[in-house]
Amino acid sequence: MSSSDIFLGETIGTAVLILLGGGVCAAVTLKSSKARNAGWLAITFGWGFAVMTAVYMTASLSGAHLNPAVTVGIAIKDGEWDNVPVYIAGQMLGAMIGAALVWVAYYGQFRAHLTDPETVGETPIEGPGPVLGVFSTGPEIRNTWQNLATEIIGTVVLVLAVLTQGLNDSGKGLGVIGALITAFVVVSIGLSLGGPTGYAINPARDLGPRIVHALLPLPNKGGSDWSYAWIPVAGPLIGGAIAAGIYNIAFA
Amino acid sequence: MSSSDIFLGETIGTAVLILLGGGVCAAVTLKSSKARNAGWLAITFGWGFAVMTAVYMTASLSGAHLNPAVTVGIAIKDGEWDNVPVYIAGQMLGAMIGAALVWVAYYGQFRAHLTDPETVGETPIEGPGPVLGVFSTGPEIRNTWQNLATEIIGTVVLVLAVLTQGLNDSGKGLGVIGALITAFVVVSIGLSLGGPTGYAINPARDLGPRIVHALLPLPNKGGSDWSYAWIPVAGPLIGGAIAAGIYNIAFA
Amino acid sequence: MSSSDIFLGETIGTAVLILLGGGVCAAVTLKSSKARNAGWLAITFGWGFAVMTAVYMTASLSGAHLNPAVTVGIAIKDGEWDNVPVYIAGQMLGAMIGAALVWVAYYGQFRAHLTDPETVGETPIEGPGPVLGVFSTGPEIRNTWQNLATEIIGTVVLVLAVLTQGLNDSGKGLGVIGALITAFVVVSIGLSLGGPTGYAINPARDLGPRIVHALLPLPNKGGSDWSYAWIPVAGPLIGGAIAAGIYNIAFA
Amino acid sequence: MSSSDIFLGETIGTAVLILLGGGVCAAVTLKSSKARNAGWLAITFGWGFAVMTAVYMTASLSGAHLNPAVTVGIAIKDGEWDNVPVYIAGQMLGAMIGAALVWVAYYGQFRAHLTDPETVGETPIEGPGPVLGVFSTGPEIRNTWQNLATEIIGTVVLVLAVLTQGLNDSGKGLGVIGALITAFVVVSIGLSLGGPTGYAINPARDLGPRIVHALLPLPNKGGSDWSYAWIPVAGPLIGGAIAAGIYNIAFA
Repeated sequence: MSSSDIFLGETIGTAVLILLGGGVCAAVTLKSSKARNAGWLAITFGWGFAVMTAVYMTASLSGAHLNPAVTVGIAIKDGEWDNVPVYIAGQMLGAMIGAALVWVAYYGQFRAHLTDPETVGETPIEGPGPVLGVFSTGPEIRNTWQNLATEIIGTVVLVLAVLTQGLNDSGKGLGVIGALITAFVVVSIGLSLGGPTGYAINPARDLGPRIVHALLPLPNKGGSDWSYAWIPVAGPLIGGAIAAGIYNIAFA
Repeated sequence: MSSSDIFLGETIGTAVLILLGGGVCAAVTLKSSKARNAGWLAITFGWGFAVMTAVYMTASLSGAHLNPAVTVGIAIKDGEWDNVPVYIAGQMLGAMIGAALVWVAYYGQFRAHLTDPETVGETPIEGPGPVLGVFSTGPEIRNTWQNLATEIIGTVVLVLAVLTQGLNDSGKGLGVIGALITAFVVVSIGLSLGGPTGYAINPARDLGPRIVHALLPLPNKGGSDWSYAWIPVAGPLIGGAIAAGIYNIAFA
Repeated sequence: MSSSDIFLGETIGTAVLILLGGGVCAAVTLKSSKARNAGWLAITFGWGFAVMTAVYMTASLSGAHLNPAVTVGIAIKDGEWDNVPVYIAGQMLGAMIGAALVWVAYYGQFRAHLTDPETVGETPIEGPGPVLGVFSTGPEIRNTWQNLATEIIGTVVLVLAVLTQGLNDSGKGLGVIGALITAFVVVSIGLSLGGPTGYAINPARDLGPRIVHALLPLPNKGGSDWSYAWIPVAGPLIGGAIAAGIYNIAFA
Repeated sequence: MSSSDIFLGETIGTAVLILLGGGVCAAVTLKSSKARNAGWLAITFGWGFAVMTAVYMTASLSGAHLNPAVTVGIAIKDGEWDNVPVYIAGQMLGAMIGAALVWVAYYGQFRAHLTDPETVGETPIEGPGPVLGVFSTGPEIRNTWQNLATEIIGTVVLVLAVLTQGLNDSGKGLGVIGALITAFVVVSIGLSLGGPTGYAINPARDLGPRIVHALLPLPNKGGSDWSYAWIPVAGPLIGGAIAAGIYNIAFA
């Protein structure tokens, strides 16, 4: 793959991932959305199919990592780091584009949510909280070591599933079925390990949209919770490295 | 493919699509339905599996576009417009047949819903609103540019997923797995981008059944909201064209 | 396939189908079940995966029709009726065995539901109604012609999807993926066309368990609604024949 | 496969299975979880995708039994018992590791749930009951013979589906699609047969985490319900043996 194809694939793919992933959070939590209160199952399937759609669309261009933790895990496994900066640059740019597109698609819902008299003045959980939640993750119970551990564990499962994929695929790599299996692995992590922190399991997925949240001209949007921002970056990167270690010891 | 196979395939396929897609809206929203209040997840999976069933059934006849936005996107990608009118004619006819079949299958539910003393005289959202919603889409917040943008964005995702399908399928095209992936792409768009406008993302899906709504002898059915009708036609067509442009620039 | 393999495959397959299909109705509706009130989506996915499991398990023995409407549709399509009685005999026996197994698995739940003071003496909908609903279907609005039409329409979709399967499968027939697609077609019919009558779409699925309901020593079980019993038999058989006709005209 | 690969594969696979399976129970039932009250559908899909993820990850190492009932069923079918102790040892160790990881990932949620004044002092169902439910199964209605029968019936369906898989897979065994089908079979058993006992259908899945529950320093955790513990061990083993018998009679 050429560097330009990798950059293009990761940018388009991560933009689609965050458009659909952030989109389902907007759909389920914001006022004046038809999907409001559709629940946790809708959110987890929404993120899973977001991954499927994005991987399926861009696998032929870049291999569809769409996640720095996956890129780092593959780099450790293969001992090959040359393209890592291109992958991560595409992922960060794509995540920011995707987050901006969510804002366009839900423009009126963001306004209604943030300016509705019932919402303004509420606590962060009820008022601007869901708006930040469209962009970035946050913990239910703020505990550095648990939050970090939960993100590490979730990412180990994700990256180990991606790394072992080749072992079952008879060499076809991230093909049509691979995208579907990966989607359901992500649904699984969401259902099973998403309860405490909202399962970032992807540094670009969390940091890119958080930057966009800080930049967007949303009324009454509140802060971007920067004190938490390092955990969904560090946790997934550590998790990706651990997964590569497990792979090299147990599966290689 | 012969013109008659294309017309037959698109007519049957789009009739099945709208029968099952309109059907799930009737099932979830009308009075005296066992599925009443089954929620947004039921509606999005219902539409997704409607697409899967219809694509799977008719792919061998016409390639199963079932959507003028897909037909236009493929025509731009391939530079080949000869069969476009046949495709769209079949899609419009099929959509109208499908909408009429929903009316047959839910005949008593429509009557119960529209003549129940609790419903008659209510506002359009509570009374005849869900009945129009079985046939056509409508926005939660009426804003021309946002509504158009949301329909464009959703359709770009759909058509780009269809166009890139061949890149992963080793040339098998819309096969068995392709129908399943397409189904889940449609569920994804519904979950993530359906909140503001109800995701028409298909001009025939919206316009055909709206015409049937206007023609059917339903008591107290209210208007067919013609002032909004151009958005779910124009938005998806623009989206299909943009997707073809992105494909030709980034993937071809 | 030998007659004995067909009979064995259809008996085992339909028993598994009804065990899992009747089971999900018991799980969602009876008192003292952990899945109580899990909703329509649980019921439709439960029946869909019931079909998948049963088809997958027995496809190599009998082709896994598991439904007289499918058997009749295939017989009309192929002009070959020799094995039809063997298929239907296995399906009816299997359906009765499956219904009896649901009674064993939910023995305490049936007792709790039918003898709970809160339930006894209620109207059929609230009291013994759900118990009959574990075995057989019934309409929300009792209207012979609509009920028959809804069952016909649902079965046309099912049987046409089964008949066209070979066109996409490159001759592999009801393989691993075929079972999955068929499962989701059944979920689709349930979500979209199940609202008015509960989608029998299979004469053996409705009549076999209804006979078992009539025979079982359940306290306060109420009647078996024999006046409705002919509709979920006749409707699906007519639907299967219509589907075969459409296939022979449009797809053959 | 070497003994060390089998042990490693079963240990990793069952750890992932219980991490994700126990995780979804924690996510849906514990206080301060974002997924709280996501419902039975979330639990059944969570366990199904847990099986898919674990099978997919470790199929190349050990064949991914992850369940003594599957191991016993395959041993009876093949008449080959040499590796059975290695399989079961890996499954038990993995199940205990997985349960401990759930405790890490939901550390704060366990504390909040068990020390919240609203919960302390409640009955086992409302207070420590859900905590034990993260680790082990328990019946809604305590009836030895029904509980045993329900576990046997559920496991027969599971193991028969696993044993017949080879008949449809053209010899590819537990490949990519096999993992997906098995996942949905497990969802099906959960939806349809999980209501009375919570569907252990796997001795290691129930006994390993129950031991961990007894050992963990959780405040106010209550007892580990050892009087019930033999049923989810004996029932699945009997079910696996019956499934192998049915296979050898009807399918071999």
